[in-house]
Amino acid sequence: MDEFTYRDGSLWCEGVPLTSVADRYGTPTYVYSASTLIDHYRRFAKAFDSISPLVCFSAKALSNIHLLRLLGREGAGIDAVSGGELHRAMVAGIDPERTVLAGVGKSSDELREAVRRNIRCINVESEAEVELLSRIAREEGVRPRLAIRVNPDVAPDQRTPARTTTGTRGGKFGVDIERAAALFERAAADEALRIEGFHIHLGSPIFDPQVYAVAMDRLLALVARLEAVGHRITTLNLGGGFPAEYIDRTAPSWDDFAEVIVHRLTGFTRQGGQVIFEPGRTIAANAGILLSTVRYLKQAGDQQLAVIDAGMTHIARAAMYDSYHFMWPVQPPAEAIPSSRDVSGLDGLTTYDVVGPICESSDYLARGRSLPVLKAGAHFAIFTAGAYGMTMTSNYNSQLRPAEVLVHGDQVSLIRRRETYADLVGLELLDDGSDQGD
Amino acid sequence: MDEFTYRDGSLWCEGVPLTSVADRYGTPTYVYSASTLIDHYRRFAKAFDSISPLVCFSAKALSNIHLLRLLGREGAGIDAVSGGELHRAMVAGIDPERTVLAGVGKSSDELREAVRRNIRCINVESEAEVELLSRIAREEGVRPRLAIRVNPDVAPDQRTPARTTTGTRGGKFGVDIERAAALFERAAADEALRIEGFHIHLGSPIFDPQVYAVAMDRLLALVARLEAVGHRITTLNLGGGFPAEYIDRTAPSWDDFAEVIVHRLTGFTRQGGQVIFEPGRTIAANAGILLSTVRYLKQAGDQQLAVIDAGMTHIARAAMYDSYHFMWPVQPPAEAIPSSRDVSGLDGLTTYDVVGPICESSDYLARGRSLPVLKAGAHFAIFTAGAYGMTMTSNYNSQLRPAEVLVHGDQVSLIRRRETYADLVGLELLDDGSDQGD
Repeated sequence: MDEFTYRDGSLWCEGVPLTSVADRYGTPTYVYSASTLIDHYRRFAKAFDSISPLVCFSAKALSNIHLLRLLGREGAGIDAVSGGELHRAMVAGIDPERTVLAGVGKSSDELREAVRRNIRCINVESEAEVELLSRIAREEGVRPRLAIRVNPDVAPDQRTPARTTTGTRGGKFGVDIERAAALFERAAADEALRIEGFHIHLGSPIFDPQVYAVAMDRLLALVARLEAVGHRITTLNLGGGFPAEYIDRTAPSWDDFAEVIVHRLTGFTRQGGQVIFEPGRTIAANAGILLSTVRYLKQAGDQQLAVIDAGMTHIARAAMYDSYHFMWPVQPPAEAIPSSRDVSGLDGLTTYDVVGPICESSDYLARGRSLPVLKAGAHFAIFTAGAYGMTMTSNYNSQLRPAEVLVHGDQVSLIRRRETYADLVGLELLDDGSDQGD
Repeated sequence: MDEFTYRDGSLWCEGVPLTSVADRYGTPTYVYSASTLIDHYRRFAKAFDSISPLVCFSAKALSNIHLLRLLGREGAGIDAVSGGELHRAMVAGIDPERTVLAGVGKSSDELREAVRRNIRCINVESEAEVELLSRIAREEGVRPRLAIRVNPDVAPDQRTPARTTTGTRGGKFGVDIERAAALFERAAADEALRIEGFHIHLGSPIFDPQVYAVAMDRLLALVARLEAVGHRITTLNLGGGFPAEYIDRTAPSWDDFAEVIVHRLTGFTRQGGQVIFEPGRTIAANAGILLSTVRYLKQAGDQQLAVIDAGMTHIARAAMYDSYHFMWPVQPPAEAIPSSRDVSGLDGLTTYDVVGPICESSDYLARGRSLPVLKAGAHFAIFTAGAYGMTMTSNYNSQLRPAEVLVHGDQVSLIRRRETYADLVGLELLDDGSDQGD
């Protein structure tokens, strides 16, 4: 599944012991496995290769330019959701022909940037955005390709958190399916625009492939209706939402999803249609861990608490969504080396609440977690942190954001340096001398 | 209550129309009223002046160095919860004698910094932290002043969110009250340390003054027990948690809190004891707004959506805690100028969901909110955003963090510039040339 493995009593990333990464770069630090990231990308693409999709990696999951570049070399494009992510794609050398832009609230500057670069597809989310895009296209003298994000009104399975459910009626995203055909026709009649198709995104993570089946059947019925009156649909963007394995064997495989998705699209692709996917989490989550250090152990009421140096500002998912992350010491006792994430058979475990250093009660990484006996100063790994980890960090409590390190074989490189106190206040020290006044 | 008022049909901050701030600095931008901040600080201090407290403003609520400096000139100290906030206090010129440090997971570097600066008080949260502080004190040859953060096991009222409740048994903060006396005695016996007293913090916001009464009575009983066996307690830090007015007349006044708190402490202060408060939200919340712009209006199912340029990355409270913020157009129609936050009597209102531009379903600022008819391009103010606003921002979705502007009378100054795309990737462009590799 990934290349974070226990070897000789200690956790390694590929050919590098994580103790050496902690010694060299400090903690908390995000550590990524290049081989895992590449392998996941290749296997995802292979599962769908009979329909030759354009796989645009979702930069909101993981956006470091070095990792985007790595994926770009494998043939991946980028799914950007802001001008900032378009900028990242550009710095990473991603071809505009493999870049798409989504987002319910794009600014006119962001749309203009996408038009000027003539990216592969702009996914529009409202009638008002089509109007704005048309105006910008005329001003720029470029005929942008666009797709309409349709809201197929499909409820995801129960394991998709409400906060990350995106494809239901009345939600903020996309255009209701009953109004999508009219908007397609309005765009098709506009000579400033090249309307190519539709985009859907159902939420994340989606564990049940049937959710895609239902959404696609609605989408394909819409396509058929438009083709019946003479329109040509050449792009279908099915978004992302594919799950990652946070535990063990709980998520369907990419082949399971392909089985439901591919046969529905072979007719479309045989006529020259282009399918786009936007996987993020499913590729990146297990390609990264957050390496931390235990700072204090304390008793609180009947609970044992482990206070580590990584909190909700360094990894927000547990505090924000009550998400589960497997976590384990980098150098556990010999009897507690995990061979899988099911640790129920291991000896000598005890129960901890794992908390971060942030002055806020939601700053829990785990409650009532079975772990080996922990020691202050010991390194501690939070797994499956490659997606929505670093991208959701903040400076709340004036905490410094972590470093990011990439491991490839036995090579280690720093791909984002740790912030400093000077960085925290840098934008407040203004050139006009007003930092001396108020 | 604050100096954000509608005048001549438009929202002003003190002597400056917010349309001019938006024109000059763009949006989203945090705008602070210096007069409001100062007035709130002065009135808070005055409510408690008979016990001459040291008022340490809680930097985690609002941490811009220019605003800390403004408060420092009024006599405020700083409550820091990290080395980053200690750094901010230093840059803002706050006297170490008026600086305190809290936090459940302070690193040894952070403790060492506090010891070297010999700050007014280090609030320790566990037996292990006392040991570490003692070791650092010996190494540095400085005898630090400390207080023990006690967990008084008081449940706050029902309006305090579980995520920001901090003073109950089994929680991560402080030392259980039944173990606090033993830890005090251990610290008192340590010649490397100067143990001065106790710290409590009950959560935030606390709407019921009786919650303080219960906690203080427990704390004072602990003090009496220790004094009976010959210890001298000279510092009592009652923390913060005082509420801000998010709506109208829903929060007790500072005098209401003083009425419960002051008479319990007059004996203590008459014997020379120092009381410390750590207010943040109660002073800062209504001293700031987040100025934004409506980008799109769209229909989704039966809902009217207003998509604005500020989302959960620019103000996290609604997405994180389902918090309520009053929000209103900067230039509403004449019949919809609000004279209070109760707008039920105004004409011509309609119902909107107000959402941000972030690709995430939790990115709602308000649901089903009565507002005047909105127009794309119009400026829109999110009120009571001065506390836990800018400090909780992030770059998720590669969004740029807002500018911060300070208004004082008719003077406007930029106190933090808006981020740029170059800032986003700056720490990834490493000097060793590895930005060209992977």
